[in-house]
Amino acid sequence: MGNWENNIRKVVPYTPGEQPNQTDMIKLNTNENPYPPAPGVTEVLRNTDTDALRLYPDPAAKDLVHAIAGEYGLQDDQVFVGVGSDDVLAMSFLTFFNSEKPILFPDITYSFYDVWAELFRIPYERPALDEHFHIKKEDYFRENGGIIFPNPNAPTGVSLPLSDIEDIVEHNQDVIVIVDEAYVDFGTQSALPLIEKYENLLVVQTFSKSRSMAGMRIGFALACPKLIKYLNDVKYSFNSYTMNRTSIAAGVAAIKDQEYFLETCGKIIETREWTKKELRKLGFYFEESKANFIFAAHKNCPAEKLFQALREQYIYVRYFPGGRTGNHLRITIGTRNEMEVFINFVREYLRKENLWKF
Amino acid sequence: MGNWENNIRKVVPYTPGEQPNQTDMIKLNTNENPYPPAPGVTEVLRNTDTDALRLYPDPAAKDLVHAIAGEYGLQDDQVFVGVGSDDVLAMSFLTFFNSEKPILFPDITYSFYDVWAELFRIPYERPALDEHFHIKKEDYFRENGGIIFPNPNAPTGVSLPLSDIEDIVEHNQDVIVIVDEAYVDFGTQSALPLIEKYENLLVVQTFSKSRSMAGMRIGFALACPKLIKYLNDVKYSFNSYTMNRTSIAAGVAAIKDQEYFLETCGKIIETREWTKKELRKLGFYFEESKANFIFAAHKNCPAEKLFQALREQYIYVRYFPGGRTGNHLRITIGTRNEMEVFINFVREYLRKENLWKF
Repeated sequence: MGNWENNIRKVVPYTPGEQPNQTDMIKLNTNENPYPPAPGVTEVLRNTDTDALRLYPDPAAKDLVHAIAGEYGLQDDQVFVGVGSDDVLAMSFLTFFNSEKPILFPDITYSFYDVWAELFRIPYERPALDEHFHIKKEDYFRENGGIIFPNPNAPTGVSLPLSDIEDIVEHNQDVIVIVDEAYVDFGTQSALPLIEKYENLLVVQTFSKSRSMAGMRIGFALACPKLIKYLNDVKYSFNSYTMNRTSIAAGVAAIKDQEYFLETCGKIIETREWTKKELRKLGFYFEESKANFIFAAHKNCPAEKLFQALREQYIYVRYFPGGRTGNHLRITIGTRNEMEVFINFVREYLRKENLWKF
Repeated sequence: MGNWENNIRKVVPYTPGEQPNQTDMIKLNTNENPYPPAPGVTEVLRNTDTDALRLYPDPAAKDLVHAIAGEYGLQDDQVFVGVGSDDVLAMSFLTFFNSEKPILFPDITYSFYDVWAELFRIPYERPALDEHFHIKKEDYFRENGGIIFPNPNAPTGVSLPLSDIEDIVEHNQDVIVIVDEAYVDFGTQSALPLIEKYENLLVVQTFSKSRSMAGMRIGFALACPKLIKYLNDVKYSFNSYTMNRTSIAAGVAAIKDQEYFLETCGKIIETREWTKKELRKLGFYFEESKANFIFAAHKNCPAEKLFQALREQYIYVRYFPGGRTGNHLRITIGTRNEMEVFINFVREYLRKENLWKF
C-alpha cells in the first residue's frame, strides 16, 4: 500500500440543507421561491435546439451577461456570471482573498464563508453580531485581508443600511469588500449604486431566490470592470465553460420578465409580513426580517421539539443546533396557503402541548 | 486610491478555442461531435417540469451518478460528476495535488494542466514526448507529487497501451495518477479496469465529445470510493449544487442510449479513417490518432497559411502557433460530408498554390 493519501486536501465539507421530495410536503427549509420561474423560461426550454447541445456554449455567456447588465443599467464588462452565487463567491474567495491578514465576516452568517476560507486556507476572524443580531460596523474598521457579509444577513434576515455599508467600504479601501445580496430583492436597498464610486466593492446576487431558479444554478457579481476582469481571469483558469446552453437561455428569459419578478417578490413580502403577525400572536420573537425567511424562536417551545413535530407532518423548516441561535428556526416564506397550513399546525401544536395561552 | 489590487490572484487565463457562429460554417476546431445528442435528450428537455426549477437540484446528482455507474458496471460511490471534465479536473487538482514535489504531465498535452497548476500554485514538470509524440513511460518513474495525462493524448491523438498505464500507476503508488480519457471512446482502451486494483488511480471522462453534449457541461470521474469521497468533500466545500436540473435529466437520457452512442462513435471512427487516407494522399503526415481529431502537418504547406485559407472559407480548424507542434493543425472529425468539403477545398488549394503534385 502506498502513501497516496498524504497530499490530499482533507476538508469538513459544507452540509447542504436537506432536499426532501415527498408529494404534499411543505418545503420551507432552503429559502426557495414558492412561485415557478417566469413563463418565458418554460417557453425557452420547450424550444431548446437540442441539436446545438453538441456544441460548446459561449464561454463568456454574453447573452446572459448582457441581459443582466441591461436590467441593472450597467455595461456588460461590469457583470460576471457563475453556477449559482456559491460558484461566484467561491471564485471571489480564490481571486480576492490572498492576504496573510484575516478576512472578516460575522459570527452568525452564511455557513459557507468559513468553509471556503478553510478550503483555500485563508485566515479569518468573525466579529460577533450584537444581541439583536445586527452587524456592528465598527468591528470592520480595522486591518484585514478582505470583508464579506450578506445583506440582508442569513440566517437572521436583518438588513444593514446602505450608509453603514458605505462606511465599511470607505474604511477598507485596501481590500475587496463583498456584499452578498442573495436576499436583497425582498425589501433591502442594494449596494449596487456604490460600485460606481468604489472600485473595491463587489456585489453578488443570485437567480435562486427572487428569480425562482434555484434548480438552474445562476448567480452573478456586479462591480467595476477591473474587478470583473480579475474574476473572469480566474474563472477562465478554472473552467472556461461553466454556464450550459439551457442555463444561459433560461436565465435571459427570467431576467427579462421584470413584471413577473416584481409581482412574485411583492407576494412573498406580503406573505412574510402576514406570517410575522401570526407568529407574534403565537408567542414567537424575531428580528425584523427583510429576506424570504423569518428566523424565529418561541418563548416556551424549544426549537428542536417544534422542528421535529413539523417534520412529522412533512412541513420542513431549517434548524441549526447549538450556539447563540440554537433555539431558532429559519422558516422560508412559501405561498400564503402554505403559510396558513404552517401557522395552523403550529397553533394547534402549541395548544395541545400547553405551550402558549390563547 | 487604495491598495486593493495587492492581494488579488493574478493569472494568465486559459484561452478557450474560438466559437464562431456563422451559418454554413464547418466547425472542426473544438473537437465537438458532429451528431446531435441521443434522441432521448430532446424528449427530456421538451418535458422539463419548469415549475420544479424553483427548487434546488439534488446536490449529489444521484440519478446521473447512478446511470453512469450502471453504464460502467460500477457502484454509485465510485462515480463523481461535475460541470464538464474541466470542472472535474480542476476539483481533482485542488483535492489531490498538494505536495511540495512537482506533478508530472507531458510537454505537449491538454493546455489546461499548466493553467490549473499555476492557478493553485502547484509545482510541475513536463517530460517531453518522444519524436513521434509518444509518452515515454520511464519519464514517470521518479519522485513526484502526482501524475496526469490524457489517453489518447491531446492534441496529438496518440494512445498509450493499457500495460504502459499500469506500469506508470504501479511505479507511483504514493501519489494520485489521473488518466484523462476525454477521447477514449473513439478507439482507445480505457484504464477503468485498473481502478479495482489501484486505489490511487482516477479515470476522468466527459459527455462533451462521444456523447455529443459539450453544450450541457457534464464530466465525470471513476475511482475507488475513498478517492471519490475526497473529491466530493472538496466539491461540497466549493459549490454544493453544481449540476442543474436540466443537465442531470439530459445526462441520464444520453448515457442510457448505448446503441446511439456506439452508432455515432462508429461513424466518427469510420470518417476519421477515411480522412486519414485522404490526408495522406494530399501530402500530410501525422501519428496514428485514436481521437475524434487528427493532428497533422503538411510536407510543403505551412500550417498557418492553410489555417488562414480554410478560415476564409468558414472552415475552422485549430492552430497552436509555436513550439514543436507549430506546423500542425488539429482537425476535428465532422460528418463524412463535412470532411469531403474540407478535403476537396484543401486539394484545390494545394493544387492552386503548387504545393503538392497530383
